[in-house]
Amino acid sequence: MFRKVLIANRGEIALRVARTCRELGIAVVAVHSTEDTGSAVVRMADESVCIGPAPARHSYLRMNNIVEAALRTGADAVHPGYGLLSEDRDFAEVCAKNGLAFVGPPAAVIERLGDKPAGRALMGRVGVPLPPGSERPPHDEADALALATAVGYPVLVKAAAGGGGRGIRTAQDAAGLRDAFREARAEAQQLFGDGRVYLERLVRPARHVEVQVLCDRHGGAVHLGVRDCTVQRRRQKLIEESPAPTLAPDVAREMAEAAVRGAREAGYEGAGTFEFVVDDQDRFHFIEVNCRIQVEHPVTEMVTGIDLVAEQLRVAAGLPLSVRQEDVLPRGVAVECRVNAEDPDRGFAPTPGVLDVYEPPGGPFVRVDGYGFAGARVSGAYDPLLAKVITWGPDREAALARMERALGEFRIEGRGMRTTRPFLLRVLADPCFRSGSHRATYADELVAEADHA
Amino acid sequence: MFRKVLIANRGEIALRVARTCRELGIAVVAVHSTEDTGSAVVRMADESVCIGPAPARHSYLRMNNIVEAALRTGADAVHPGYGLLSEDRDFAEVCAKNGLAFVGPPAAVIERLGDKPAGRALMGRVGVPLPPGSERPPHDEADALALATAVGYPVLVKAAAGGGGRGIRTAQDAAGLRDAFREARAEAQQLFGDGRVYLERLVRPARHVEVQVLCDRHGGAVHLGVRDCTVQRRRQKLIEESPAPTLAPDVAREMAEAAVRGAREAGYEGAGTFEFVVDDQDRFHFIEVNCRIQVEHPVTEMVTGIDLVAEQLRVAAGLPLSVRQEDVLPRGVAVECRVNAEDPDRGFAPTPGVLDVYEPPGGPFVRVDGYGFAGARVSGAYDPLLAKVITWGPDREAALARMERALGEFRIEGRGMRTTRPFLLRVLADPCFRSGSHRATYADELVAEADHA
Repeated sequence: MFRKVLIANRGEIALRVARTCRELGIAVVAVHSTEDTGSAVVRMADESVCIGPAPARHSYLRMNNIVEAALRTGADAVHPGYGLLSEDRDFAEVCAKNGLAFVGPPAAVIERLGDKPAGRALMGRVGVPLPPGSERPPHDEADALALATAVGYPVLVKAAAGGGGRGIRTAQDAAGLRDAFREARAEAQQLFGDGRVYLERLVRPARHVEVQVLCDRHGGAVHLGVRDCTVQRRRQKLIEESPAPTLAPDVAREMAEAAVRGAREAGYEGAGTFEFVVDDQDRFHFIEVNCRIQVEHPVTEMVTGIDLVAEQLRVAAGLPLSVRQEDVLPRGVAVECRVNAEDPDRGFAPTPGVLDVYEPPGGPFVRVDGYGFAGARVSGAYDPLLAKVITWGPDREAALARMERALGEFRIEGRGMRTTRPFLLRVLADPCFRSGSHRATYADELVAEADHA
Repeated sequence: MFRKVLIANRGEIALRVARTCRELGIAVVAVHSTEDTGSAVVRMADESVCIGPAPARHSYLRMNNIVEAALRTGADAVHPGYGLLSEDRDFAEVCAKNGLAFVGPPAAVIERLGDKPAGRALMGRVGVPLPPGSERPPHDEADALALATAVGYPVLVKAAAGGGGRGIRTAQDAAGLRDAFREARAEAQQLFGDGRVYLERLVRPARHVEVQVLCDRHGGAVHLGVRDCTVQRRRQKLIEESPAPTLAPDVAREMAEAAVRGAREAGYEGAGTFEFVVDDQDRFHFIEVNCRIQVEHPVTEMVTGIDLVAEQLRVAAGLPLSVRQEDVLPRGVAVECRVNAEDPDRGFAPTPGVLDVYEPPGGPFVRVDGYGFAGARVSGAYDPLLAKVITWGPDREAALARMERALGEFRIEGRGMRTTRPFLLRVLADPCFRSGSHRATYADELVAEADHA
């Protein structure tokens, strides 16, 4: 196992990774921006290195600064967390070239799956159902129009190098497609440095369900069941749960096995997530692979008892997974709510500030992954995620009741700060969500309703 | 199910009970002393009633004040927590007479098991092994000496109406017995208002192992496995775990089944704990029954996924248990550490004060049951328990590594305050504890060593 790991991230995920390192006896190097000097992970780390100012492109996205920090501190591995450089094939490569183990799949695998049309093709080869889509990026607008007609409206225009719900436009018809194509290309260029887009038929009404897989270099490949991430605002997940509340167990198993086949075909290593959209006939369609740990991984940990970060580290160190498929015995239901520093009454505008009060909930079957503490600065330069509250119960109703209790108990206050906590409580109390009959448009409609009222 | 429950306790257990009530949609009435006006449970409760000043005999032990508060607020049940009035048969009776459901066994059962020699006799009838002991209280010193000779030295002199490790003296021989008998009688009178004592052969080297049972009024009676509570300082538990680290699984099962037989024989209702002492040949001997929820119940919850307080409330409301024996499927290992406001470097003297910093640990598989927050007053009038940290892992080593991480991360500071955290970390790092080879004298020896050094 590694002796020292550098965590190339910030916020709650940096703390999350540090905690498992500590438990495994691995020393932790934190890197941080000037903005994050007093952060929780810096306080916990054995060593910390400042790698530049905010925003992230001057620090957390500076590969050379990070690699230099790793070499200087004698780290033998780099954990990229999620977002930032976690799915950057160049970063994986530059780590490897400098003799640093990258905690994630090899550069070649990231490249293969990071190109979304190529990822589709790969999954198609192993018999995984795909939504109708273009097998290649359109050359120009005319080509896009022709391809869209073949795919069928409504159509999504997605960045080929994208992922995570960013850089996506919807077109209802040919007129809409022109704008969508132009905007999506521009955004793709801006966000991912690659203007290529592809088309995919919009499945609706839909649920978002994903499969967690773990693969090692010794032929080990398992799935840890599914997560439902249907509650999304503007394609950003707000509430996630495992298992999926209304998906038939045999369909969930079929989907999970499809993901493992895809992972094997891709030569996957480490923790990865296969995302699907599920229609109202419980038919699933592959969307994309996320080559990293997910924000919502704790629900899987609560249900399976498996530490996903520990498995990532094992695999990156060349060890076999600690579990075989028959050892994965899910129990009960877990739910996660993302508490963001955003004002739900003002269009979810970020509300940075200083935390005056930070009292996380506790007690039975509650987990909090947050990096707050009284006096902590919440920067506006980054992701607004403050804390994830995860609850477990023997069934969904128990897990949700516990979540209402836990969120109710969470005291998180700061001058000028607001959080999404009231909005989350509103969703939890809503009969549509409670019954599991919500679909992908649910949270956006709820926001629109509130804005209208 | 109840609509409103009054919690006749304070500190972490009051908060623990309130949390489950909240999850079950039950309104919470907190009672508190003038000392506890700003406590966490008072902040969480729907209503709160001041029942007098500290110490407890002027408030938390005042049955009439509590019953009056329950009647005035329209509570339909009273949860006594642990300690205080939880095993007081009169309190159970006065609740019942006032139409309040008492969350615990009926007065007659508390009485039957609260008399420790009678409890021994009852267990003997269902074939549960007992340490050699006197079947009746000695009449006088001469009688005690005669009985002790028959029992065999070393002998424990225990309060007949006692329990929980209080009011116990050890005698190595006849000379020692005289003092032990006199002191134990005086202490029994003082602590329990009943000077009767009985004799029991000291089993050593011993481990303390207990069985959690749950019984309803419909014939349902299950055990939730065992807990090892061998790490005790002056007979007070410091660290508990489930399952017992070195006990053979078939012996653990035999012990658990013996406890269920005893519970049935006693007509038990609710959550109860059967305590045993285990010798180095893995032979177990019954000690006593605790007719209440235990401080250490969370380790059982972490391993089984069953909310013990919810089951208590179900039973008290006349509902059947939510689980049958075959539904109890323990997973992994859980450990609990008690963080007390005591100074381990000064003979574990209580260190009351005000908490300036209270940042509980979080992240995967960590639970904290504590009632602290920044600014909270820690009174010297009560039990020094501040917080329980509970961790879970697929095996003992993982759970212990996680505990070291969690305790390391716990920031708990106040003017003049000290906690047992450093002592707990010392135990966790000790090879004797780590290997599970520690016995009942372990923690006292560790303290003596430190005092000597």
